Amino acid sequence: MGKNSGDYRFLKACRKEEVDCTPVWMMRQAGRYLPKYRKMREKHSFLEMCKTPELAVEVTLQPFELIDLDAAILYSDILIPVEAMGIDLEFIESRGPVIHNPVRTLADIKKLKVVDPYEGVPFVMEAIKILRRELDGKAPLIGFSGVPFTLASYMIEGGASKNYLEAKQMMYNAPAMFHELMQKITDTVIAYLNAQVDAGAQAIQVFDSWVGCLTPQDYKKYVLPYSKQVLDSIKGGVPRIHFGTGTAGFLDLLKEAGGDIIGVDWRIDLDTAWEILGHDVGVQGNFDSSKLFGTEEIIEESVKDILDRAGNRPGHIFNLGHGIQPKTPPEKAAFLVDTVHRLSRRK
Amino acid sequence: MGKNSGDYRFLKACRKEEVDCTPVWMMRQAGRYLPKYRKMREKHSFLEMCKTPELAVEVTLQPFELIDLDAAILYSDILIPVEAMGIDLEFIESRGPVIHNPVRTLADIKKLKVVDPYEGVPFVMEAIKILRRELDGKAPLIGFSGVPFTLASYMIEGGASKNYLEAKQMMYNAPAMFHELMQKITDTVIAYLNAQVDAGAQAIQVFDSWVGCLTPQDYKKYVLPYSKQVLDSIKGGVPRIHFGTGTAGFLDLLKEAGGDIIGVDWRIDLDTAWEILGHDVGVQGNFDSSKLFGTEEIIEESVKDILDRAGNRPGHIFNLGHGIQPKTPPEKAAFLVDTVHRLSRRK
Repeated sequence: MGKNSGDYRFLKACRKEEVDCTPVWMMRQAGRYLPKYRKMREKHSFLEMCKTPELAVEVTLQPFELIDLDAAILYSDILIPVEAMGIDLEFIESRGPVIHNPVRTLADIKKLKVVDPYEGVPFVMEAIKILRRELDGKAPLIGFSGVPFTLASYMIEGGASKNYLEAKQMMYNAPAMFHELMQKITDTVIAYLNAQVDAGAQAIQVFDSWVGCLTPQDYKKYVLPYSKQVLDSIKGGVPRIHFGTGTAGFLDLLKEAGGDIIGVDWRIDLDTAWEILGHDVGVQGNFDSSKLFGTEEIIEESVKDILDRAGNRPGHIFNLGHGIQPKTPPEKAAFLVDTVHRLSRRK
Repeated sequence: MGKNSGDYRFLKACRKEEVDCTPVWMMRQAGRYLPKYRKMREKHSFLEMCKTPELAVEVTLQPFELIDLDAAILYSDILIPVEAMGIDLEFIESRGPVIHNPVRTLADIKKLKVVDPYEGVPFVMEAIKILRRELDGKAPLIGFSGVPFTLASYMIEGGASKNYLEAKQMMYNAPAMFHELMQKITDTVIAYLNAQVDAGAQAIQVFDSWVGCLTPQDYKKYVLPYSKQVLDSIKGGVPRIHFGTGTAGFLDLLKEAGGDIIGVDWRIDLDTAWEILGHDVGVQGNFDSSKLFGTEEIIEESVKDILDRAGNRPGHIFNLGHGIQPKTPPEKAAFLVDTVHRLSRRK
């Protein structure tokens, strides 16, 4: 199939066309819950695996051995381009990403580079090229990036955060500095995503995972213009999925920032969310990943509820509300995907 | 003033009557951000301070020396009655509450007691009685409790949690057990809150702080019936404030569970939230506590935005969206309260 082949039900749903059944994939579907992956991790560090195309390709394809997924997503991390900007990044087991030189001053920001993806992160485009060959005729490939706020929050906080107090303090008390940081990240992300498209990514998902820590008014003032720059700059008509969590109170603003498909978490009913968004955009997500630790009845009940609320409306992509959790039983993930296909099969 | 004196603007707002200006208090207004409090904590453990009426009274009154608050809230912790149920509770600095015997089996649940508040937590009622005398003519006193889900989540998880996976697993995989635990907590909380009312609490706030981790459908099925039992059982027509965070996607269900005033966090505009809730209930909260680390301009801008969205509608109580943060400058908290009064003064 060609680069923008339209035969995949995932891509059809992205374009809001009719599908034979609802497409489904899972955020973090390549990763820690798979035994083969954990075995690989005994030999290689997380960053090494992200940066070695052969390893990243192998991990990206692993879940397809067990699960009937409708899309592949490049195995990588949203902080990969951030590291290339000049951030001293380490992944510490059980603690997540740690940044040893958090960005707190104007001098820190001045030192950061706007990354040329072909120089800074060439391994990403190499992995995409290999994956397109490997996946040909099997599944479309999603490229991705964090968007400026979520990336800035890691850079300023120095890692994951509970209250995002450092990031908000820069926003409130040094807005010019904050805007300079956001613009540098924006420029990096735009080049990064377009390089992924040029390498063959057939859809793009942008992650604004932590944007739900903000008030709607702060999102509008400090974040939306940068997310919009990114989403407006993705070339070639490639479908764009705009994902966040904790956004039930300002889904309208997420839509305003852009995207063909808006990601929603599990804290709002799908029909309520879609009503707020308007049916001119598609919707992805909504399944509580904790239910994969429940019985098959619990999983099926929730799938049915979400599908009923979507009502076979074109533009629905089934997914979790956030990433799959590390100890998820792989057979439950496979059951989820099969159940989505079975219950959504169009007559 | 008498027990149910209606002269306080806080109580008037609870009853949706006209007020001279918008009443304001702050969750966790008695506590760690105050230097006097930190000095006391050098001599006494957190639990000791909660359980010694003289100390709890002193801490409750401390913020009034600096800040022009419209209500006092008993200094205590939502886990106080949980400890009396038979939970081995410890507060570890910088980590929060740790439960050394988390509830995971039916045997664990059977062992828990339904607490008679006069036997299990008599110090709470003693503190309330002293506070009513001390506060007479100055401010009304709010009593409070956690509600079943948030308390159960601590008991099952063994402390704070990110994904609430243990609690959800009990919910999904052992629902009968989960319901038995919820009912035991419900019975404890109802007796506890009514004892607080009998001792003189002039309003009640129930905290369902972590209920935002759930899907709306799970809230409806596993949680709402218990919160409703609690809210329906508060005697004497005392105003009830029903608080949660991360609830923008199911505010309608929070209202269905009950309460005269619904608490909202900062992740949704106040007018949007009130529209969803309906104007037959009041609204409290909405200010992002991180803004207290911003300039006075940042604080004033947000106060003005929230007040504009409330539009002097009866039933608005100004508050933070969650508790005040430990390192908040006390003078900024005082500025917030003065600004609310100044900008909301009715002509």
